[in-house]
Amino acid sequence: MTTRQILLTSRPVGDCTLENFKIQEVTCYLPKAGEVLLKGLYYSVDPYMRGRMNDAKSYAPPFQVGQPISGAVVAQVVESKSSKFRPGDLVLGNLPWQEQFIAPETSLQKIDAGLAPPSYYLSILGMTGLTAYFGLSDICRPRAGETLVISGAAGAVGIVAGQIAKLNGCHVVGIAGSDEKTGLLKKQFGFDEAINYKTAKDLPGAIAAACPRGVDMYFDNVGGEISDAVISQINFHARIALCGQIALYNSRGIPQGPRLQPMLLTRSVLMQGFIIGDYKNRFGEGIRQLSAWVKEGKLTFTETRIQGFEQLPLAMLGLFQGKNTGKMVVVA
Amino acid sequence: MTTRQILLTSRPVGDCTLENFKIQEVTCYLPKAGEVLLKGLYYSVDPYMRGRMNDAKSYAPPFQVGQPISGAVVAQVVESKSSKFRPGDLVLGNLPWQEQFIAPETSLQKIDAGLAPPSYYLSILGMTGLTAYFGLSDICRPRAGETLVISGAAGAVGIVAGQIAKLNGCHVVGIAGSDEKTGLLKKQFGFDEAINYKTAKDLPGAIAAACPRGVDMYFDNVGGEISDAVISQINFHARIALCGQIALYNSRGIPQGPRLQPMLLTRSVLMQGFIIGDYKNRFGEGIRQLSAWVKEGKLTFTETRIQGFEQLPLAMLGLFQGKNTGKMVVVA
Repeated sequence: MTTRQILLTSRPVGDCTLENFKIQEVTCYLPKAGEVLLKGLYYSVDPYMRGRMNDAKSYAPPFQVGQPISGAVVAQVVESKSSKFRPGDLVLGNLPWQEQFIAPETSLQKIDAGLAPPSYYLSILGMTGLTAYFGLSDICRPRAGETLVISGAAGAVGIVAGQIAKLNGCHVVGIAGSDEKTGLLKKQFGFDEAINYKTAKDLPGAIAAACPRGVDMYFDNVGGEISDAVISQINFHARIALCGQIALYNSRGIPQGPRLQPMLLTRSVLMQGFIIGDYKNRFGEGIRQLSAWVKEGKLTFTETRIQGFEQLPLAMLGLFQGKNTGKMVVVA
Repeated sequence: MTTRQILLTSRPVGDCTLENFKIQEVTCYLPKAGEVLLKGLYYSVDPYMRGRMNDAKSYAPPFQVGQPISGAVVAQVVESKSSKFRPGDLVLGNLPWQEQFIAPETSLQKIDAGLAPPSYYLSILGMTGLTAYFGLSDICRPRAGETLVISGAAGAVGIVAGQIAKLNGCHVVGIAGSDEKTGLLKKQFGFDEAINYKTAKDLPGAIAAACPRGVDMYFDNVGGEISDAVISQINFHARIALCGQIALYNSRGIPQGPRLQPMLLTRSVLMQGFIIGDYKNRFGEGIRQLSAWVKEGKLTFTETRIQGFEQLPLAMLGLFQGKNTGKMVVVA
């Protein structure tokens, strides 16, 4: 049987382009004992993957040139040589960008499609939900009445972080890149204020107006000049969670900007970089809490779905052009 | 009776110069009920005072133009109208740069000259010792076997932070600006390695050589390019305590440098600005621990003493030219 896979053919220099990917046909064998044959249903497309396209030391190992891209995938069991899975079961795993593939039973976890749509296990009930939960509760440590600013607020992590902060009684301000997104943040996700950074003439002024008591917490998904504007409004004893730096992932060399340390020092500010793996011993707590909120209707979610396996490279590029609201998912 | 005081006559733009100060004679009256007449003995000269010379929001209020500079002073009671103090008592307070002056009894604390030289209450048993203690124990959180780098290591805070880290079983590397200072760090204060940043041809390389297991903790007193070099060697899950940014205090405008956030993010690094006031509820704990170590001979200390009240402005300028080893103190 043949199937299609998507390879990394070269490492991007600066912006990632379609030339860095190739789609090709490969043979897919049948499963051996302890393995299953899977069909990919939903493929997660995430900003951190851009980092893995570089050959640089980071928290996730680099993708190899000539090898398939991989990431979180929700798949369905087609054929099973495992006692743990039956055909039709839905599973989650870190799997290749390939339409059908063999996986060992130990790399998969079964998911419950009764609680939420299966793709939600790539997002609000998976890595992005946990990222929002731990970044906010453990680093920002929200207290009722405090002000939180979120950059990249309409992304998969941002919309969850904002809703959790509202559950904690905070004033929540989102920054996003279109009026459609800022409208959604306020109407669908309950943000108090939302700023379109592309049309704001004076971004620090717009942030100051939206945050009359200053900025106590900053959940940063983007970095760059948007962060400079937020940090200029930061309060004494503020907490900054560094979750993503999407504005910089495509940079060549080390980007320059204003030095932060004098501001962090004179205002006793905490800045903490984190990755979700830092909290792996507490995933159970996070998933229980997120699932409870989803069940109670306290957390809502949205996805940008792109149809067609072969659209994966274009979906990846779209992340860096702000084409997604909520989670970017490719549906095979 | 007349006495001399040192005023701020203008706010520095960029480097602080002698023109920003003036020495003048003023009348000193006699104490009223609840007050004492004091004679200054030891005047503390500290980097943070440069920030107070600007008219900018910070943790300590700005000095006022036309008013005396003030800071930590060890003084002796000359005449007392307070039941709490007798002539000859040694006291510590936040007091003006003036040779003799009146102070209310509530602004003073008596010190015990039996434990250590009186000037040590300006440093190892005072603010700089507490700054080292809390910055290291609360932010860096040393574990045996980890590596700590200290910039401005031969300053009053640096030499204490390094010794405390050694008491915790760490590998300690100091960065300072002369061979005399690096020699002292290793011989007198027990640092494992010391780097002269002025003569090192490749500072990141020198740091890498001195830190074969990378940098787990960075106690930063200086900022600027020295910090860039240290942070380039930082380990996963490192902690950075921002204690001072002396390289930047004289800057005009906001200095530019490499953006830190991508590095902090991908290595899950914590960076925390702090001032000693953040720990005021724990001063008792800190002073008990520091006093015990001093008594047991586990902490040693050094000062740069400059003779003559009128030398205070020059001593202040000297801080930014690296003229001190340990605490900069002016002896009246």
